[in-house]
Amino acid sequence: MKHYNVAVVGATGAVGEEMVRILEERSFPINHLSLLASHRSAGREYYFKNEKIEVLELKDDSFQGIDIALFSGGDEVSKHYAPLAVQAGTVVIDNGKYYRMDPDVPLIIPEVNPEDIKKHKGIIANPNCSTTQMVVALKPIYDAVGIKNVICATYQSVSGTGKEAIEELREQTRAFLEGDNIDIKVYPHQIAFNILPQIGSFDETGYSSEEIKMLDETRKILNDNNINVSATTVRVPVFRAHAEDIHIETKKEITPALARELLDKFPGIKVIDQPDVGKYPLSLMAEGKDEVFVGRVRRDLVFNPGLAMWVVSDNLLKGAALNTIQIAELLIK
Amino acid sequence: MKHYNVAVVGATGAVGEEMVRILEERSFPINHLSLLASHRSAGREYYFKNEKIEVLELKDDSFQGIDIALFSGGDEVSKHYAPLAVQAGTVVIDNGKYYRMDPDVPLIIPEVNPEDIKKHKGIIANPNCSTTQMVVALKPIYDAVGIKNVICATYQSVSGTGKEAIEELREQTRAFLEGDNIDIKVYPHQIAFNILPQIGSFDETGYSSEEIKMLDETRKILNDNNINVSATTVRVPVFRAHAEDIHIETKKEITPALARELLDKFPGIKVIDQPDVGKYPLSLMAEGKDEVFVGRVRRDLVFNPGLAMWVVSDNLLKGAALNTIQIAELLIK
Repeated sequence: MKHYNVAVVGATGAVGEEMVRILEERSFPINHLSLLASHRSAGREYYFKNEKIEVLELKDDSFQGIDIALFSGGDEVSKHYAPLAVQAGTVVIDNGKYYRMDPDVPLIIPEVNPEDIKKHKGIIANPNCSTTQMVVALKPIYDAVGIKNVICATYQSVSGTGKEAIEELREQTRAFLEGDNIDIKVYPHQIAFNILPQIGSFDETGYSSEEIKMLDETRKILNDNNINVSATTVRVPVFRAHAEDIHIETKKEITPALARELLDKFPGIKVIDQPDVGKYPLSLMAEGKDEVFVGRVRRDLVFNPGLAMWVVSDNLLKGAALNTIQIAELLIK
Repeated sequence: MKHYNVAVVGATGAVGEEMVRILEERSFPINHLSLLASHRSAGREYYFKNEKIEVLELKDDSFQGIDIALFSGGDEVSKHYAPLAVQAGTVVIDNGKYYRMDPDVPLIIPEVNPEDIKKHKGIIANPNCSTTQMVVALKPIYDAVGIKNVICATYQSVSGTGKEAIEELREQTRAFLEGDNIDIKVYPHQIAFNILPQIGSFDETGYSSEEIKMLDETRKILNDNNINVSATTVRVPVFRAHAEDIHIETKKEITPALARELLDKFPGIKVIDQPDVGKYPLSLMAEGKDEVFVGRVRRDLVFNPGLAMWVVSDNLLKGAALNTIQIAELLIK
């Protein structure tokens, strides 16, 4: 079996650390692992398979001899370094948004559109966290009866923003309980015990960049420019996992029972749906788990035919690091 | 000006305490104020207009001489005591759900359907908190262009459940930060740093009682059985104020600009809608405020014609105590 030289770019971030952990957990066939980060984070040490690896500063020539680079370093890093990596013969799998809508870059969820990976020209993109878990849950229904319209409200955890946001929620919460002044640094408003209807920046139509991603990326992944997604993306005071309320207008009738059955059979989905005994997906339940959890599957009261459901997944795992590594697994298959 | 003998039933609860405060704040014309509660809470003392009032135990004969009784004591209390009060000549305004769908009981939001109050036969009902703020925000759009369908996801604070839930969120949060065991008493799952897609109990269709209320009560208040409301009601770790993501299919076209203008003119609504500079309604902003705050007004991407918007209000005030007292003001007008 071939083994690969793999680099993680942005290795010290919340997603980068999960990538390193998952590469080990899933026994990705690695010959050599390079951990790359900014000058500020270089020198830190991580353990990988009991071996200590020092984080190196990301430079223009960092990709010599690297087969696969997993990027999670932000837009500017992707913009500058991904083309350099491709020139060096590396295949880049980018967790960021910079290349997602590039027509030359496939946007991949391995369970949903694996065949699109063949079109890659050196860069493959990983979808946005809130898109991935939604599209995984839509796909079995889409295949069975078709989908015309989706309305989605999100309940997104702070870890999607990064380590500094996790610390901000914790510190603001402590300050609130102890009656101290509350410092606001990462988000535009206090996040502790508050709800912020903003993720990303707003365009002139009043939609946020996160909301537009959910429309554009869903269309690209499903190869269907007729599907509409109207999303409201919202930050909530939760550390990890995103929850989503999803209302679906299907093309043909489907019963909730059949939808549950198709969802449960689909790779990567776990159905938890006995609300009468308090069993439904929860943010806390999804933390650290690979699955997309689906519950509260019911007939929609507006869309007919249609369904409503509640979808929860760990935004750092299936929403980011796990899906990136599943793309790498698909690539080498 | 006539002054009234007023009783507050459930005076020591989260809503009851707000009722007493608002009666004073709005200078409701009171001759005598009776504070009534269970045997357990009797004997507590509250100040009303600098006068100390002792809470009395609620009994079958508590309503002799009472003109108006504001009930917020739970279903069993309403069921037993409201008819006794009516027999004693008292007009009951009930904050609970027990009488809301009774055809003999008007369900009133004073800004929305004041004329319905004339039909009362001794009992008037106050709508559910999540319904009230939604219907206030729908009404100016409904009047201008008609509404066919509404899809709503809620972000509801723990204070809607009562004082013990406020304490549970605070205590679980403290325990989480300090690494202590987390006690779960009020909710079926941990609420601190978690999201619960359950409010009330579930029926066989998979909808919760709170979600069904949002459909049934909206139809009753708007006197329109053709409007559909598909809701997902969700508890979030916030102390006070409910937020709602609302997608509206209108009958005729309306621009977001006109909708904002009509909303801002409507009594009780404040529009905050400059998302590009971080201005939109927040749970924390609504705490202790009378208004229904509306923002993020935009064209919906699924409903055409349609709008999406974000609506926040204090669930204990416009969602409960304030609306109850506004009904009383309408009654005596």
